[in-house]
Amino acid sequence: MSEGRARLAAGQQRSRILEAAITCFARSGFHGASMGEICAEAGMSAGALYRYFPSKEAIIAAIAEAERERHAAFFASLAEARDPVEALASIGVAALEAVLADPGRALLAETIAEATRNPGVRAMFERNAAEARAAVTDALRRGQAAGLVDPDLDVATACRVVMALGDGLCAHQAFGPPLDMGRMRPVLRALLLRFFRPPPGSAEA
Amino acid sequence: MSEGRARLAAGQQRSRILEAAITCFARSGFHGASMGEICAEAGMSAGALYRYFPSKEAIIAAIAEAERERHAAFFASLAEARDPVEALASIGVAALEAVLADPGRALLAETIAEATRNPGVRAMFERNAAEARAAVTDALRRGQAAGLVDPDLDVATACRVVMALGDGLCAHQAFGPPLDMGRMRPVLRALLLRFFRPPPGSAEA
Repeated sequence: MSEGRARLAAGQQRSRILEAAITCFARSGFHGASMGEICAEAGMSAGALYRYFPSKEAIIAAIAEAERERHAAFFASLAEARDPVEALASIGVAALEAVLADPGRALLAETIAEATRNPGVRAMFERNAAEARAAVTDALRRGQAAGLVDPDLDVATACRVVMALGDGLCAHQAFGPPLDMGRMRPVLRALLLRFFRPPPGSAEA
Repeated sequence: MSEGRARLAAGQQRSRILEAAITCFARSGFHGASMGEICAEAGMSAGALYRYFPSKEAIIAAIAEAERERHAAFFASLAEARDPVEALASIGVAALEAVLADPGRALLAETIAEATRNPGVRAMFERNAAEARAAVTDALRRGQAAGLVDPDLDVATACRVVMALGDGLCAHQAFGPPLDMGRMRPVLRALLLRFFRPPPGSAEA
């Protein structure tokens, strides 16, 4: 096998393990899921699995890293957008929609629960959350400078509110009738535009 | 002991067990915490504990019931309020603040995670969530009839968004710098008023 093909095969093996791990964590919890259960789900020997991931923590780190890569694409668009409020209402809501459609979304509540107990897991997701806060806050500050965001809004706090909303919706999908994105989209759009824009009638409007 | 005093003592014992259970669940998770750990935390013999709660599920049911009773007071105020938007922005935010200050708040993510796996737990919290949705949606519909809420807003969907925001903030307190309620209060107030009120300049304003 060429080096390129070997690397591709290794990447595919890692993805297969991560997918199996997400299924097992969602089913049994981080504590409940054993490396044996993950091997069985991935259809792999323990030896093969340990070659890629020496521990459950290493698997969780890879999941956090994958989350970070997914976010990076959104942050890049946000940083380039002329209007950060419009970007949050369009690509932000679309990104949320992709997460809601992901079978791994049930893992979010599990991740937060584990992070409250496990400092290693907490640190990985803290770093992702800090990067997300910085990207959204920067974009909103640029929006204030351009007259597109309410200049009186405490954007650092508003940013945490909006991130909590996104995570809350992901966690909430476990309860009640399934979230209908056709109905959710215009409501989220109205919320973001009304919340962030300078109030109509103010000097900036 | 008179019957009244016996009932009071039983109520105190139950509260002591629930408090110990919340500490253990937050520390070890629903799965990780054993009845033995809960006995030790409550400083009680297994016999005494089993007299009040025959299983961990019975303890979780009592926690869900306590959540329901806490919510009931808020829903009663909401039902009586002339202006439901103002009620959400004042007593709703105050209720959120009380939950955020509660050491049991870390349990929320744990509860949601467990509810995604355990149909019994799910049913208990589903019932609470359905009652909350009905109370908030009814109040917002009254607000629409009174011209205090945007008549074009899909209030059933908006209600789920606002509930997800509250739960997201509770779960989020595990990440990043602690939420500063002095800064959070005016931002949440602005969000709720701008989101729900008829847009300025519309016929209803």
